[in-house]
Amino acid sequence: AGDAEAGKAKAAICAACHGANGIALIPGYPNLAGQNEQYLVSALKAYKNGERTGAQAMIMKPQADMLSDADMANLAAYFAQMK
Amino acid sequence: AGDAEAGKAKAAICAACHGANGIALIPGYPNLAGQNEQYLVSALKAYKNGERTGAQAMIMKPQADMLSDADMANLAAYFAQMK
Repeated sequence: AGDAEAGKAKAAICAACHGANGIALIPGYPNLAGQNEQYLVSALKAYKNGERTGAQAMIMKPQADMLSDADMANLAAYFAQMK
Repeated sequence: AGDAEAGKAKAAICAACHGANGIALIPGYPNLAGQNEQYLVSALKAYKNGERTGAQAMIMKPQADMLSDADMANLAAYFAQMK
């Protein structure tokens, strides 16, 4: 599993849309708070490897491209542990 | 917005993986409880129209293919209102 503290340090950009508390500021975007850690990692990977296309992917792929596997694991741990 | 009661009637299949309470029974699958209604609709549409590919899409696309736009709106309303 990832390191939530390390994830917190990377989460500023995510928080801009997904909320500092993991509740999306924009209704069309997903809440991340309490989401399954493993799912969050697979969603980020799906954006990075191009398995997800379309409008939301155009926004998320550039974000995911900047993340290493460790970053993804840490961010997933950080948002998953939010209640 | 969709009709949560009508969504409930369609949700049995979803509950098999995503949980009757919207908390996924399988860690790699997303929790749906309290997720943004609009996001749930766009995710279902992304599976149905092939914007999402890969392992999870192989499971979700056949499910989404069975759903009308109204079904998607109602299911999204049903899971979004779960706390």
